[in-house]
Parts: sequence; structure tokens; C-alpha cells
Amino acid sequence: METQTDLTLDEIIKKNLNPAQLEEYNRIHYGTKNLDTLRLTDDLTSKCKEKGIDIAAYSFPAGKEELREARKVKIGLIQHSIILPTDKSVTEQRNAIFRKVSELIDIAASAGVQILCLQETWSMPFFLCTGEKERWSEFAESAEDGPSTRFLRKIAEENKMVIISPILENDNGTWWNTAVVIDENGNYMGKHRKNHLPSVGSFSEIGFYDPGNMGHAVFDTKYAKIAVNICYGRHHALNWLMFGLNGAEIVFNPAATISEFGESFWGIEARNAAIANNYFTCSINRVGTEVFTVMTDFKAKKTVSRTYYGSSYITAPNGCRTPALSRVKDGLLVGELDLNLCRQVKDQWGFNMTSRLDMYATELAHATNK
Amino acid sequence: METQTDLTLDEIIKKNLNPAQLEEYNRIHYGTKNLDTLRLTDDLTSKCKEKGIDIAAYSFPAGKEELREARKVKIGLIQHSIILPTDKSVTEQRNAIFRKVSELIDIAASAGVQILCLQETWSMPFFLCTGEKERWSEFAESAEDGPSTRFLRKIAEENKMVIISPILENDNGTWWNTAVVIDENGNYMGKHRKNHLPSVGSFSEIGFYDPGNMGHAVFDTKYAKIAVNICYGRHHALNWLMFGLNGAEIVFNPAATISEFGESFWGIEARNAAIANNYFTCSINRVGTEVFTVMTDFKAKKTVSRTYYGSSYITAPNGCRTPALSRVKDGLLVGELDLNLCRQVKDQWGFNMTSRLDMYATELAHATNK
Repeated sequence: METQTDLTLDEIIKKNLNPAQLEEYNRIHYGTKNLDTLRLTDDLTSKCKEKGIDIAAYSFPAGKEELREARKVKIGLIQHSIILPTDKSVTEQRNAIFRKVSELIDIAASAGVQILCLQETWSMPFFLCTGEKERWSEFAESAEDGPSTRFLRKIAEENKMVIISPILENDNGTWWNTAVVIDENGNYMGKHRKNHLPSVGSFSEIGFYDPGNMGHAVFDTKYAKIAVNICYGRHHALNWLMFGLNGAEIVFNPAATISEFGESFWGIEARNAAIANNYFTCSINRVGTEVFTVMTDFKAKKTVSRTYYGSSYITAPNGCRTPALSRVKDGLLVGELDLNLCRQVKDQWGFNMTSRLDMYATELAHATNK
Repeated sequence: METQTDLTLDEIIKKNLNPAQLEEYNRIHYGTKNLDTLRLTDDLTSKCKEKGIDIAAYSFPAGKEELREARKVKIGLIQHSIILPTDKSVTEQRNAIFRKVSELIDIAASAGVQILCLQETWSMPFFLCTGEKERWSEFAESAEDGPSTRFLRKIAEENKMVIISPILENDNGTWWNTAVVIDENGNYMGKHRKNHLPSVGSFSEIGFYDPGNMGHAVFDTKYAKIAVNICYGRHHALNWLMFGLNGAEIVFNPAATISEFGESFWGIEARNAAIANNYFTCSINRVGTEVFTVMTDFKAKKTVSRTYYGSSYITAPNGCRTPALSRVKDGLLVGELDLNLCRQVKDQWGFNMTSRLDMYATELAHATNK
């Protein structure tokens, strides 16, 4: 039986409000009384139901323009739990994840997805929470030709799909938290490294790798100009801003975040970024519980366990957002985005025009030279 | 009878969810299952009920520290409608507003409020929407010793209250959208000018005044370090950021904003700013409908009408927020804030420590020199 917290808040709300009340809820919290849903085939829907995958699809249309055709692109966000216990071999754990993700991408391909983003360090358990490095080191891999990249290049080519693959990178002995971008022909297109690293309570990524040294790249893919703001970077408004200034139309935020830290602003930050920068944002969180047995300094064993709450969602440049995917199940969220909406909202709201960046460049330079 | 939209969404939710569901709603949307309410005297409560004033009071405690006492401050946000039709004389309209606001501040004083903020251009109808200037020009006043400042200085002194008074300033023939800060002794303390001016659809403030030329002042008042981000400035992350870098513990956002533009992100932006900068934010919106008869260029009359949706609220440095005040009634929102929470959350989450402002100063300088 589903427990209260297995239901997303959206599901609770839907069950308890009448249609007019639900419209008001959606108007205030989601920016639109009725979001357009995309029809999925019965085959896909029943396949997902059978496999316990939460699937949902929405459309974000834009106004008609004279000089530009609609620029529709279909994106997919995948959230998935790990499969094997974390004491299994690297190869076994990784292959099990590969098998599951392969199935999920198949479903995304059937739904017509052209740009797909996976969760943070998707091909491994998120062992950073153990504080241990050496024992897990074989999960770190080459961005250019490691197992995750090789696995996804083939799938990308087969499906003419751009794939964002957030992994743990080992670059000639140095680790990075990196998102690899693979183009629709299966070519390695480039990578971006996580700019801001968390150190919250007993959890810290500092010591595993440094903050990213690659600035704020925007990848001009066949389907859209995309960027990746990895996990904790969503707390930093300037990180979001720079991707926007560099031309991003969609910014993906693959994450690995737990309820105890910030579930109440999971719906705020990426949505605020979409509003402030008038691009689409895509929030993807891991899902499921991961349990690790770690050795303490005194040779005793202890168990470290972290539960990720999924809740992946998409926000449009005008602040309209989708409901969240499940808090507990694997899921695929599909969005059909008309990229023309980015400029339309910019022209309507004027945030770019009124941003006074020159003033802030001066003020920031002054503030950091104190 | 109250209509659906007379109820706030919070009220609708409260009526339809059971306690466990309500906790989940609060956890996700307000950052805490149960916000601490502050007890108001029965006298105050019944007086407000009688007068149709929405009053609410909440407490945001912080953890106990060894080296610092709790630094509790009581703040008040007032939202109010205008009283007289906009074709009455300046003096009549203003005096009617003075009388109402005087009553509201009396109530705030009885509730122990130490820092009070009024809505944007509180002492006049928000005539900027007419596009007309000359006809309304006598509402523009001196920040240092205009009627609004003189009126509030007396009240501030009587109640030992710091008051933020957002007005339309006329400084030697030049208009500005300005917030005046009056200290607890009734002295003029300083002013801040709105940094970002809207030009959305047919509504534009450009032509009335220029964007602010006073940077991002923080006022070190007796009770707290405060700043004012006026209205449309809430859309700009860097505006919020600079107040934080300059040491603000509470940032007030007095506004005049209508449902058609952004009610769905009214709850997002100031809350996001509180989270990103780990200070308290206070969102204050006008309320009620204001109707203007304006002359068109062809000497015909037309009616311009704008309805403000109130919904004032407070957010804490950890993202917890209060429910919104009424969408339609005058209101007073009281918050008891322990300012120690600002540093506690900064230390816990590490956003400041990981902000990499030097990198962004360089990137922004580059971006604005293209």
C-alpha cells in the first residue's frame, strides 16, 4: 500500500481539491491553470505501469511568429534508483544500472525524445556520502571514452538523441564531477564540470574533487542550445545567470539531493532560475535509498544510508512548471518545448533589458577586492 | 459572500486537507510542517476583525548560541488599499490614506512591531499605470521632508519604530521611486532608489524616473541591518545578492504588482532570494482596485483599472515562509525574527563560502565588455 509520503504532494492535492480549487492551486504554484499534457501511446503507458516507472509528458507551446517557425524540441529527464547492493563489484553494479537505463532510454526514444539528461553520477551509487575515496575509485572514469560514455554514444547514435551524461570523471589522475554531452550522431561533444561543491553538515565533496574549471559552457546541439548546472550549483544565482548570458535555451540540473537538505526549495530554485533568465530549466534528482557499509577510523563498521526523493520537473521561461515525478519510483518526464518561448518572454518581461549588468560587474569587482 | 478568489490558496488548502496532508503541503511549499504562530491579544484580534483587517503573526526562532544572545526583532508589513476615488484632490486622497495607515501602524505598535515597512508609493494611488505625469505631479514629494516623511517621523518617534516609507520622490525637479528610512527616534536616516524599472506590455515606469543611482545601501538601524529592494527589482538576482554582500539581515520588497504579471512567481522570487542569500525577505504588495479616468491623445476619456493582489509574506534565511496575507483585504503581517538565524544557515549550507564571486566578477566584466 502506498503511504502518505509515497504520494507526491501533487497527487495529494489532486485527490482533495475540486476542479476550480485545483485550478487555483495550479495557477499559484505552477503558473498555469491547466498545463498541456502530451498524449503517450497506450503501449508506452502500459509498459511503464507494468515496470513501475512513473511517466508523464507535457507541452509548452509558444506564440506564433511571422519570421520564425515554431522550434519544438522534445526532451526527456530520467530519474532512477541503483539496483545492486553497493558491496557488489563495480562491473556488476554498473552493468545493472546500464541495463535499467538502457530500458528507460528505449522508452524515451519511443516517446520521441531528442535531448535526454540523466541524473548526477548516474552510473554509480552516490558513494561520496561515505567519505571514502579509494574503495570506490574504479567508478571514476574518462569523460571522453570511459564505459559510461561508450555505452551512451551507441544509444545516442541509434536514436539520433543528444544525451547529457553526468559522471564521476577521472582525468589523468584528477577527479571531477562532470557532465558529458554526446551529440545525436554519437560523438563526444564536450563536457562541463560542477562549479560549486557542497559541504553541508557531515557531507562534503571537497576532498574528492575541486570546483569546476571550465566556466559556463553552452553546447550548440542540433536541437537546442543547452547547458548543465550540476546539483549544488542550483543554489547559486550567478551560475544560472552565466549560462543564460552565454545563450542557453535549456539548462539541465542533474542532482543527487536528499529530503533533509532542501526538499522545500527543490521547487523554488530551478524555477526561479527559469523565471529570472527566461530559459527552460530541467531538474532531475536521484531516487531510492542507497546503503553503504563503511569502515570507520577505528576499524569498526558503520552503515551510511541516503534516500533521494526524485521529484524531477521542468519549468518554462515564463515560470510555468510541470508537476513533479514520483518521490520513490524510477521515472521519465517528457517535455515538448517550443524554444521560441525564451525570446518571447524576454521581450514581454524585459528582465534582460533591465539587468544593468555593467553596474553589477563593477559592484562585484569592488566587493571581491575588499 | 466570499468568492473562490477572495480566499487565499492557503485558506483553500487548509479547508480541504487533513492534518497530515496539510503538514506535507507546508513541508513542501513553506519549508516547515508547522510554523510557530505568535499569540496576539484578543483586543487586537477583535479590533482587526471588526475593521476587516487581515492580521497574522509568526515567529522564526534560531538555535541557541554560546557567545551571542538571541537577537529577536519584531517586524511588520502593511498592505492597504487606497480610499478615495482618484479624481479627488491630492490632499484629500493623501489624508484619507494617512488616516488609514495611522490606524494600521497603531495596531502594529500594539503588537510590538519595531521595524515596519509600507507598500510601494504607499501614500498615493499607483497612477504610473495611466501613463500620465503632469496631472499627478503633486503626489511626488521630498524624501527628506515631504508630507509622507513628516507624517511618519512623528509616528516613528512615538512608537520607537523604524519605518520604511516607499514614496514617489521629487528631488529638485527629478523624480525617483524611493524608499525613505526613518529611525526609531523619528530621524530621517537615508533613502534608497529603485534599481530596476519595469516596462511590461503597455505599462512602463521609464519616462517617469530613471533607475536608481544609489547602489545597494544597507541601513544599520537600532534593531537590524535592513535594505529595500523595490518592486520589479525582485526579478534581478544580482540586486538581491548585493544587499546580502553589503550585510543585510532583512530585505524588504515593497511592491505594486498585479495578478496578470507574475502572481505565480510572487511566492518564488523573494523566497528564492532568502534562500540564496540567507537573510529574511519581506514581500509587501498593494491591495484593492484602483480606477483612473485618463484623457487619450484624441481628447477622449478612457478608464484604466488595476487590481493588486496583496498576498504579503515573510521568508526566513532557511526558506521557511509564512502563509500569504489576504488577496483582497488590508492587512498587517507581524514576524518575530531571530537574526542569529542568518549566520546559522550560512554556516550550515555554505552558499556564501562556495559562491566563487571572484570568478563571476571576471566573467561578468567580460560579458559586459563584449
